Amino acid sequence: MQSPLIKKLIDAFTCLPGVGPKSAQRMAYNLLERNRGGGMHLSSALQAAMEGVHHCQRCRDFTESTLCGICQSERRDKSLLCIVESPADVIAIEATGGFQGTYFVLMGHLSPLDGIGPEDIGLDQLKRLINEESPSEVILATNSTVEGEATAHFIAELLKGTNIELSRIASGVPLGGELEYIDGGTLMHSFSGRKPYTS
Amino acid sequence: MQSPLIKKLIDAFTCLPGVGPKSAQRMAYNLLERNRGGGMHLSSALQAAMEGVHHCQRCRDFTESTLCGICQSERRDKSLLCIVESPADVIAIEATGGFQGTYFVLMGHLSPLDGIGPEDIGLDQLKRLINEESPSEVILATNSTVEGEATAHFIAELLKGTNIELSRIASGVPLGGELEYIDGGTLMHSFSGRKPYTS
Repeated sequence: MQSPLIKKLIDAFTCLPGVGPKSAQRMAYNLLERNRGGGMHLSSALQAAMEGVHHCQRCRDFTESTLCGICQSERRDKSLLCIVESPADVIAIEATGGFQGTYFVLMGHLSPLDGIGPEDIGLDQLKRLINEESPSEVILATNSTVEGEATAHFIAELLKGTNIELSRIASGVPLGGELEYIDGGTLMHSFSGRKPYTS
Repeated sequence: MQSPLIKKLIDAFTCLPGVGPKSAQRMAYNLLERNRGGGMHLSSALQAAMEGVHHCQRCRDFTESTLCGICQSERRDKSLLCIVESPADVIAIEATGGFQGTYFVLMGHLSPLDGIGPEDIGLDQLKRLINEESPSEVILATNSTVEGEATAHFIAELLKGTNIELSRIASGVPLGGELEYIDGGTLMHSFSGRKPYTS
């Protein structure tokens, strides 16, 4: 007996990550009951973003222009190239304010079982970029997961023979972390990756 | 450095209930990376619903027509009127398949502190409806919360002096519930509301 428009809206909401039928229903009714303006605003923001946002020609991050803001900027150090898996990683690193180099966004990681190979994560483009710009250091900042490590390893193999310095972000106990509550894998990693103590 | 269109989209997502900045970002990037079609579909479903859905003239439930499907139906028993707080309650009751009467949807509950009075929950319209249709029984199916009980009480007062049978849905231990894990309030309610045992 539900109105077809509401049914369609609830269905459409379930395409969002982490939204099942129950939350979708809650979202639909909440907008209809209390916030139609917000709903219309979300509708137009969605359309504008889906149509207007594409990939930066240099780094593959999302942008509305040919080049993204970071790639356009004169202030960024192009000799330092940081490879990440997703645009959200760029935002997380930018939020720290501690990195002044540029990025290359893979938009995923290698996953042969899902049919995601080197071309799908833009490794051809990465190779061309490195040939053109020849950065002095490439930082492999893929996730510290099995797939992320495998992708980092693959890229490292790809860049073998060039005289580019390759580095991998450190993994170990998070700042403020207590050893008692850290998982065994991380703890072993932080032991094998130990460094000379400097005070 | 984030694209303005993406920023706007993330902002717009936070108008949804239970969606904070972090989930909003995840939703925006998920759609952009993996499901642009789904995003466009959501956009048009939103616009259609926000513009096309309004209230049923008889019961105040959401509908695209003058009367909702239940009010239009010839099969529903108009002598039985069930008063609920929200359209989601109608769906929950309809899903049980056990109720053949019609509804009146308050679209909220009395809440003097929030400035929600009798007119805001359509009690004028309810009175008119009852005068016109003079149902034999009105079921008060507002939530079993303080506000829901207060609203039920207010409506009961309103209908005093008419010869309509008034009932309130039972509250007590849920089916399959174990007494050990039921809160004290519910347990006391199920004792004070006990009925003669029939096998």
